[in-house]
Amino acid sequence: MKIPTSAHPRIVIIGGGFAGMELAKKLRNKPFQIVLLDKNNYFNFQPLLYQVATSGLEPNSIAFPLRRVFRNARNVFFRMTEVSHIDPENHTVQTGIGPIDYDYLVIATGSQANYFGLDPSKLLPLKSVPQALQLRNHILGEFEKALVADSPEEQKARINFVVVGGGPTGVELAGALGEMKNFVLPRDYPELDFSAMNIFLVEGMDRILPTMSETASSKARSYLEALGVQIHLKTLVKEYQGRAIDINGIQVPSRNLIWTAGVKAASLPGLEEALGKSGRIQVDAFNRIAAYQDIFAIGDVAEMASEDAPRGHPMLAPVAIQQGRLLGQNLLRLQQGQPLKPFEYFDKGTMATIGRNKAVADWGKLHLSGFLAWMAWMFVHLFTLVGFRNKLVVLVNWVYNYFTYDKALRLIIKRGKNQEETFEETVTESVSA
Amino acid sequence: MKIPTSAHPRIVIIGGGFAGMELAKKLRNKPFQIVLLDKNNYFNFQPLLYQVATSGLEPNSIAFPLRRVFRNARNVFFRMTEVSHIDPENHTVQTGIGPIDYDYLVIATGSQANYFGLDPSKLLPLKSVPQALQLRNHILGEFEKALVADSPEEQKARINFVVVGGGPTGVELAGALGEMKNFVLPRDYPELDFSAMNIFLVEGMDRILPTMSETASSKARSYLEALGVQIHLKTLVKEYQGRAIDINGIQVPSRNLIWTAGVKAASLPGLEEALGKSGRIQVDAFNRIAAYQDIFAIGDVAEMASEDAPRGHPMLAPVAIQQGRLLGQNLLRLQQGQPLKPFEYFDKGTMATIGRNKAVADWGKLHLSGFLAWMAWMFVHLFTLVGFRNKLVVLVNWVYNYFTYDKALRLIIKRGKNQEETFEETVTESVSA
Repeated sequence: MKIPTSAHPRIVIIGGGFAGMELAKKLRNKPFQIVLLDKNNYFNFQPLLYQVATSGLEPNSIAFPLRRVFRNARNVFFRMTEVSHIDPENHTVQTGIGPIDYDYLVIATGSQANYFGLDPSKLLPLKSVPQALQLRNHILGEFEKALVADSPEEQKARINFVVVGGGPTGVELAGALGEMKNFVLPRDYPELDFSAMNIFLVEGMDRILPTMSETASSKARSYLEALGVQIHLKTLVKEYQGRAIDINGIQVPSRNLIWTAGVKAASLPGLEEALGKSGRIQVDAFNRIAAYQDIFAIGDVAEMASEDAPRGHPMLAPVAIQQGRLLGQNLLRLQQGQPLKPFEYFDKGTMATIGRNKAVADWGKLHLSGFLAWMAWMFVHLFTLVGFRNKLVVLVNWVYNYFTYDKALRLIIKRGKNQEETFEETVTESVSA
Repeated sequence: MKIPTSAHPRIVIIGGGFAGMELAKKLRNKPFQIVLLDKNNYFNFQPLLYQVATSGLEPNSIAFPLRRVFRNARNVFFRMTEVSHIDPENHTVQTGIGPIDYDYLVIATGSQANYFGLDPSKLLPLKSVPQALQLRNHILGEFEKALVADSPEEQKARINFVVVGGGPTGVELAGALGEMKNFVLPRDYPELDFSAMNIFLVEGMDRILPTMSETASSKARSYLEALGVQIHLKTLVKEYQGRAIDINGIQVPSRNLIWTAGVKAASLPGLEEALGKSGRIQVDAFNRIAAYQDIFAIGDVAEMASEDAPRGHPMLAPVAIQQGRLLGQNLLRLQQGQPLKPFEYFDKGTMATIGRNKAVADWGKLHLSGFLAWMAWMFVHLFTLVGFRNKLVVLVNWVYNYFTYDKALRLIIKRGKNQEETFEETVTESVSA
């Protein structure tokens, strides 16, 4: 048996993101056995991934070991593994470390990049820490290669960057690239002509930050254009073979297509009946899957249709955190035979930053921008980071970057050649051994 | 042409380590064209690699971008590439970005792990940043796997660690593992019985830290044993298949063989005649290869035999730094037709740290140990780190680790699946394109 037995009912939580971690926290040292499953041993703070990709932060500053979070929770059992499928009839999940039974199951698997049919191996996604590190290595590597390019065409293709997706991630990444072009890269590569470097931001809708206010969109647009970012709206990337991109009929040579153009729910085999058109798991007001009284879904993967949100709540961290928190309370109520509380989303507002001193924020009717919004953005993100050490190290880096106009972490860390085995491989190997 | 032409003689430096970086610094904005070649775009501070491997420091804290170092040096041209061989007759080096001519060539390729015939894919080396990250992932991964092991034997093999090599790296790593066993891991893995975890330090000579004083050796030994490290002297590991190690006739089950048992010079094809028995490049008192007036070797790769050092100077950072500095001065003298200065090694002493509050140091006749030596060790290493941000971040981490008895960076960061191409691959591809 891979997990000790317990007198208390077992709640298996799949996914240690904002939703799953918050739920497990709520149930720390409560009369449940919590089995938390994640393919990584850390929680990762996705809103700052783009700063890892642009050499502003260490990956370690935005990731936090899950075991550290639950160190003093005697009822939480973390296992690093992937779930292959769910078997509701037998109340079991199949994992890389074998089958695990549950009394209650919570799907908190979040979302993954949606490539809309393009070849993922040609795109640069930004949804995980390894992807952010790959993107950093790739961006810096392109400039090293541009220096020794054989043709002007190849050099152009290496220093042109196309960011697809005008949401917060795309906007913040394009802004960071603009700052690197203006302040960092010319000092590192005096041999390159940076007037030839183009940064494109491509969005399918008629404005960037479509989920935010018109004011925020137009402010963000002017901030980005001031940084030299070329914005193309109502534009879709339909094809990419790794060398050039068609933007409204213009062929832009670029080996760097950064993909932030939308996400899709990361559901699991075995729950097909519960999926809506969007691919998200449809849940009631208590995040419960109607067909199964003992299976819940929270966060990005869950679609809670309601009058004010017919297509479910937005795929945002605050929704995930609030749903995780409420489900924790509801599971306790369930045990005590009390009625469950329906979920109500409290919109704390949304914000995005575009380079130094500039950000946009919507708080209900209030639209903030510029330096004040930027300060607010920094404090909110510092405050929500997990771990005192992380807060401190991030602050040190931000202060350093601010005053030096530098991004200190411009390292191309190649992977070594030995020990290629992945975690799952060895486990299965050892299981079958 | 991959490198612009210059009116000044061109010095090609292969390797941006302690020796190569120091030399290039000396010749900043001097009447030479400096071409600095390294397979990585960063300088890495090897003495602290073991802290990256044991979750104490971010890799970014001990690595520094070479372009940042030479940002204001108009005569230094960095290229990230590997050198395949040297052609002294034609004064050319063959690299991944094509042939590069030189007027003077300096080999500063350092050293690499010496596996003495064992299968490297079974060992865990610690000579580079990727290797340190792999070791961190491996160490943490083993405890995750131990939790779900199918047999007590497999579990033992996953939590037993064998460090081969009693030099500073092996001693410091074994000490850090001892601290993790005592302070960090039991809190992360309450389900595991850590009395079953063994840490072995295996050394071929009759004492650990054989290059230091007897006092240092015995002090270090008692510090390590206090941390629970089992030391085996006059012991050689002759065979390892990945599951168990024979230590003086006892079969120790272990999947974790960390290899710090010696290094060998990382020479390059084309200089075979210049190699000594040890495999190091034999140089005169000016670090020059006798056979070629225009080729020099500095640092670990160079063997400067002298009366007080018949087998060359020790492979240490201070030797590399001092040789790089002197060669810089000598190359300027050469240009001005002045006589060259012979190298004299100034031994600044050696030190090693073994966990919190404990270190050993030799300064000539003075042998320091305990808290004072530990403070000295920290200040020397902080002081010699490259970059203010790095100094600050390292200090933050050390202070945090000291007061929390924690190592915050226990992340298993897996590599992503896309963008597998290595730098060399694309360059060659683009060169041949």
